[in-house]
Amino acid sequence: MERILVIGGVAAGLSAASRARRLAPDAQITVLERGPAAGYSACGLPWFLSRRVPRLEDLLAHPPEFFRERRRLDLRLGHEALEIEPARHRVRVRAPGGESWLPYDKLVLATGARSRCQPERGGELRNFFSANTWQQAAALDAALASGPLRRIAVVGAGYIGLETAEALAARGLRVTLVDAHASLLHGFDAELASELPPRLAAAGIELRSSTRVLGLAGARGGRVLGLATSAGEIEADAVVNCGGLAPAVELAARAGIALGRTGALAVDERQQTNLPGVYAAGDCAETRHRLTGAPAWVPLATAANQQGRVAGANAVAHRARFPGILAPLALPLFGLEWGRVGLSEPQALAAGLRPAAMQVTAGSRAAYLQPEPITLRLIYDAVSHRLLGCHFRGAPGTVAQRLDVAAIALAAAWKLEDLETLDLAYAPSLAPLYEPLVIAAHNALGAS
Amino acid sequence: MERILVIGGVAAGLSAASRARRLAPDAQITVLERGPAAGYSACGLPWFLSRRVPRLEDLLAHPPEFFRERRRLDLRLGHEALEIEPARHRVRVRAPGGESWLPYDKLVLATGARSRCQPERGGELRNFFSANTWQQAAALDAALASGPLRRIAVVGAGYIGLETAEALAARGLRVTLVDAHASLLHGFDAELASELPPRLAAAGIELRSSTRVLGLAGARGGRVLGLATSAGEIEADAVVNCGGLAPAVELAARAGIALGRTGALAVDERQQTNLPGVYAAGDCAETRHRLTGAPAWVPLATAANQQGRVAGANAVAHRARFPGILAPLALPLFGLEWGRVGLSEPQALAAGLRPAAMQVTAGSRAAYLQPEPITLRLIYDAVSHRLLGCHFRGAPGTVAQRLDVAAIALAAAWKLEDLETLDLAYAPSLAPLYEPLVIAAHNALGAS
Repeated sequence: MERILVIGGVAAGLSAASRARRLAPDAQITVLERGPAAGYSACGLPWFLSRRVPRLEDLLAHPPEFFRERRRLDLRLGHEALEIEPARHRVRVRAPGGESWLPYDKLVLATGARSRCQPERGGELRNFFSANTWQQAAALDAALASGPLRRIAVVGAGYIGLETAEALAARGLRVTLVDAHASLLHGFDAELASELPPRLAAAGIELRSSTRVLGLAGARGGRVLGLATSAGEIEADAVVNCGGLAPAVELAARAGIALGRTGALAVDERQQTNLPGVYAAGDCAETRHRLTGAPAWVPLATAANQQGRVAGANAVAHRARFPGILAPLALPLFGLEWGRVGLSEPQALAAGLRPAAMQVTAGSRAAYLQPEPITLRLIYDAVSHRLLGCHFRGAPGTVAQRLDVAAIALAAAWKLEDLETLDLAYAPSLAPLYEPLVIAAHNALGAS
Repeated sequence: MERILVIGGVAAGLSAASRARRLAPDAQITVLERGPAAGYSACGLPWFLSRRVPRLEDLLAHPPEFFRERRRLDLRLGHEALEIEPARHRVRVRAPGGESWLPYDKLVLATGARSRCQPERGGELRNFFSANTWQQAAALDAALASGPLRRIAVVGAGYIGLETAEALAARGLRVTLVDAHASLLHGFDAELASELPPRLAAAGIELRSSTRVLGLAGARGGRVLGLATSAGEIEADAVVNCGGLAPAVELAARAGIALGRTGALAVDERQQTNLPGVYAAGDCAETRHRLTGAPAWVPLATAANQQGRVAGANAVAHRARFPGILAPLALPLFGLEWGRVGLSEPQALAAGLRPAAMQVTAGSRAAYLQPEPITLRLIYDAVSHRLLGCHFRGAPGTVAQRLDVAAIALAAAWKLEDLETLDLAYAPSLAPLYEPLVIAAHNALGAS
């Protein structure tokens, strides 16, 4: 009986295990999760921090019993993999009851991501937090619920930092958001993102952009007093580190599993690493960008789960392949929706393409039914007219599925000309006669 | 100086004229519209009838002066083309001031659609209406506003009949909806549409399905007393005919312009008819279905406008082609949204394909944020796995753009396998981890 061992039980790991069970009813499948919970929605953590989702348990796709009983997975919480010995097909595991070696026939690594910058003493400080995992969010929430924390410094104005800042402000806290860059929401078109600062101000958030964090300020008695920055000290009752993520590859790298150019675990399209029978999926693994074929590392949940399914299928001798990512990201922030898919103009330039862009603002429905404005920046190759990417900003309810429309057009390798005469849905109250995306393609053709 | 004559000024006609102007700044462009208004949203008429759009003028994309002054179109309202003489390149026109012959170098026909069934004496009756045009809606509204009309019989439960019935019920009228078929919303999947009858009842609409209209009942003093049907007489203070549309081709057919298999004007992909220099676009013209290449006639506004642009470009010696339609239809009805794109199962069978279907009901966002259910029926070829069509039913705000996602996948000739590992946008409050469309593809692959 084949023994499948999966390290990591949040997203990709449980997807791999579930898929393997579906395809191999008799396999022995073990999932090691070092945290206290498996199969939860990490993207839902800001909703918990803002208290719009009352309990962390609400973020569970299923309770552990579901995975154990219905899917017959040997799901072990609080089990941390310490060492992989590929030559002997075994993993050393620290469990609540002690350490032991666990044998495997096939191994799936789904160790996820970790905070990129972790101050040396961060773990010892009682008011220094992150917000990427169940445990981290639980610790932050417990401190907020019990302590006299009023002023919170959030480090990093990428999308996780912005979501976290918004959530904490919604909870009534005084938030200062600190970021080294001049613009927010890195990776989004800077002009579209310029709408954010006034909205942060309206939400009561103090923004310190172009401000480099030099370190924690004045740690004393297990507590930090704030941040030391390039623009002076920022006092805070607590610091939340949202300063970006990196793939969690140390365990695998120590075992000789190769890293790719992005620093994540290198895999082929079957999610197999350089070691036969050892797969990697999700935020710890590198993937390819669909548009360029180039190695890419973009930690997003849908691709992580899909890679997990592919790894799980291949681990039980089925054949599945993951075709790469388009990296679509949609999120609600400060009363607007934001979306991005494909390449940004700098990314396209770096890939040797010749990006041009057409930006339009157009209505979400017929003009006589009070349309909401949608601003869209369509990026395309100036010579071949192939679509390269799309950035959106719009009212609530107007962006996420339009981003999917752009995603499919990108995945299908469409050109401006393919969009221009496409008959999309029109109904006065639901969609305009011409979708903003079609208008952008039309205008781009007129301009080119 | 090239003289372009366009017959019809609602949708395709004005698109053709505007596109021709853009590409040929010096052309002399004349648009004949027999009605009192040009460039209005016919799809908005139910919104006017329900009074949610207060004035018909609100439905104008632009006032006539805009087209005359900004676009320098010779737009003539109240001008009806009576006869085309292709050999002499001229059209006989009835205008308020009398009849005359108008010469042309290139002709664009955009005569639209008309009610398929028109009782002989309909035009003479003061309480018999249609709701497809500005004039018809104006007449119906005036009668409702001024007269003691309380009980309205609406004939036809296609989407226009349903929209009209809903609009009139919202206006406080007692509506009886009569249709010969057993199910509503023809062309939609019958099981999805089975949700409609209880919603009609909740809106106070009396539904008489499987009821054939035999004629108008007891016309007397210029008024009809109701409908004679296969299930007896239905008394009504007014009758609104929504019994389906047909292409308005009589003018062209008399001039020797060929019809296609569907009964609409046959055109090539440049929208040219069998007569060189004579183009047709919009609801009067036949087109091709993108998926089958077969002739199709589906009167929908976006394709009409796009065909108009293609015809207008070709009329001024540019080269443009229309690639055919996917016929996406989205509409809000009775508190839900409905959508359909591509082929239905009967259409696919008739086209010699081997349709199979996978129906799923899945959430519009993360489970912990009170998702709305979306029901989707994905139709695909059982052997090749190529996507053939998709039907949707969902809560407000959940369908139209998802229909566009399916439309692009269809236009790109995708298979189930292409959808299964596509990374679409996910954000807990905006879109679920797996889109219903991706779940349907996954389930279909599991089942096949």
